[in-house]
Amino acid sequence: MDPAPAASDGPLTIAQLAALAGVSTATVSKVVNGRSDVAATTRGQIEELIRARGYRRQRRPAKAAALVDVLFHELRGSYAIEILNGVQAVAREHRLGVVVSELGGRHVPGHDWVEDVMARRPLGVISVYSGLKPGQSDRLYSRDIPLVLVDPTGDPDHDAPSVGAGNWNGGLSAARHLLALGHRRIAVITGPDDMEAARARLDGFRSGLDLAGAPLDPALERHGDFAIATGRDLALDLLRAEGRPTAVFAANDGMAIGVYHAAAALGLRIPADLSVVGFDDLPKARWSVPPMTTVRQPLADMGAAAARMVVDLAAGGALPQQRVELATALVVRESTAPPRD
Amino acid sequence: MDPAPAASDGPLTIAQLAALAGVSTATVSKVVNGRSDVAATTRGQIEELIRARGYRRQRRPAKAAALVDVLFHELRGSYAIEILNGVQAVAREHRLGVVVSELGGRHVPGHDWVEDVMARRPLGVISVYSGLKPGQSDRLYSRDIPLVLVDPTGDPDHDAPSVGAGNWNGGLSAARHLLALGHRRIAVITGPDDMEAARARLDGFRSGLDLAGAPLDPALERHGDFAIATGRDLALDLLRAEGRPTAVFAANDGMAIGVYHAAAALGLRIPADLSVVGFDDLPKARWSVPPMTTVRQPLADMGAAAARMVVDLAAGGALPQQRVELATALVVRESTAPPRD
Repeated sequence: MDPAPAASDGPLTIAQLAALAGVSTATVSKVVNGRSDVAATTRGQIEELIRARGYRRQRRPAKAAALVDVLFHELRGSYAIEILNGVQAVAREHRLGVVVSELGGRHVPGHDWVEDVMARRPLGVISVYSGLKPGQSDRLYSRDIPLVLVDPTGDPDHDAPSVGAGNWNGGLSAARHLLALGHRRIAVITGPDDMEAARARLDGFRSGLDLAGAPLDPALERHGDFAIATGRDLALDLLRAEGRPTAVFAANDGMAIGVYHAAAALGLRIPADLSVVGFDDLPKARWSVPPMTTVRQPLADMGAAAARMVVDLAAGGALPQQRVELATALVVRESTAPPRD
Repeated sequence: MDPAPAASDGPLTIAQLAALAGVSTATVSKVVNGRSDVAATTRGQIEELIRARGYRRQRRPAKAAALVDVLFHELRGSYAIEILNGVQAVAREHRLGVVVSELGGRHVPGHDWVEDVMARRPLGVISVYSGLKPGQSDRLYSRDIPLVLVDPTGDPDHDAPSVGAGNWNGGLSAARHLLALGHRRIAVITGPDDMEAARARLDGFRSGLDLAGAPLDPALERHGDFAIATGRDLALDLLRAEGRPTAVFAANDGMAIGVYHAAAALGLRIPADLSVVGFDDLPKARWSVPPMTTVRQPLADMGAAAARMVVDLAAGGALPQQRVELATALVVRESTAPPRD
């Protein structure tokens, strides 16, 4: 490694860029890995150098495997499978093996995982609904391994490029659909409070009600965690109370299935007695009885977008955007109808 | 590589074993990789040599990655996720990365996949509900990469060690449960005819009916493919015909969900008008309305067993058994009841 600027006109390494720009290699690494936590002037200066001279990723060891690592907080249900299918499609195109890890429900990986990734030196890492602590992502960057987040959670490294769905608009469309049917007593069961996607769904839903002059009744808001059983329990609570809602928006399909169970337990028919809207459009929504009205997020496309970002970053390219947001769409099926009175 | 027997008392390589036994290295490779297509006397001779002297796997390149490859015919639904969770648990123990590939619904991988596996040299390959052509598995064995099958399909290499559930007994227990409730007009929707597990479920179910003196009416047998929509269409056909069955056994949970849809479409209540038994015990069975009676197969345990077999084979150990079969268990929930008349 030669920290001095190269005399030739060839593309520059991180060390050469750092020397020319008078900044640390860590700063250059952040810029070339698509992170946002670099002062705009410094970033501009480095990007100008890259434009003028080109950027050459440090040579990888000859035996480095053609792999991309995907880290899930939990391998449960079709959410993970759909994302994985999108990653696979891009990986196949580029002849990359897809290494899948899961954190058993935790949101931050342990020491072993980081060590193992550094040892196998994949092209890059996709972290789904989980995050790396800043120290952990810095270790990956130190080995020139880029990181892309899908549906990031609360605290971890947020300067990494990320992919998500248009969650706010999805929440808005759910609210507008129920309002258009004539519902006014509408309950919501939210996702985990520390998950950006869940907060965006709630915010969009709430704004939809506000904009229609029918603000969310705080008595009809329940905080969930995306588990089916939670959806059931919170819905039982909502449906047993005085002034029962005529419609429920659940922030994922799993909790909406839980609402189906609560309704069945109380002898309420969907949609005659209760309208239900989910979020995700997993197979369980299409195949519930009755088929569920839900907000579709394009999970396979999200996985594919993240994989393409990894491939681009690993090739030394710049990302056209730091945050990719793919559109959601309301899918109207048979779990929603006008309220009875 | 030295094909002559080693002078020392240390463990023998494949080449040394072949020279001592007077057979080809391919034959020794088959024995140490747990395959069954070797004459018993030859196998005995080689195993005796290994017992006496020990076996030393050929040295891998220093940079070989700590990986296990898992090949799925299709990444859809929770079946794949459950298997993968079991593999993950064992992989984590051994600090192995799990590389996941899928064949997009085909049952035999293409040329690229085999080349990519050979290039990344994993510890071993687990092939789930899919198979390798003999030429393909031979290429893996030539690089000392063992292969273990989970739920093998029809034609491909069947001499590899395999893992499955007690499918026959599962089918039998489904039949006995419905008979004990008093059902006599019982229909069955089978899985794909080229899949061993599906055939075993049907055979066990049929034997259960035969043993009770109530043989399966050929008019009540339908051949499915494990898809939800197929289960629905075949059930509509069964339930619209004269002499409608009072119970249906579907060979997987997905098709049983399809039966739920057919019943709903025809205004039949489960279990009052129709009993339904599935097979798998995926989350969709527990969370269907009403919760489904089904035969549980321990998918995570099956994945873990396959991963342990790969680890053992890669370490040069012998497998205690070539075929591991894990027990199934009937889980009685709310989709089955006595027939009404």
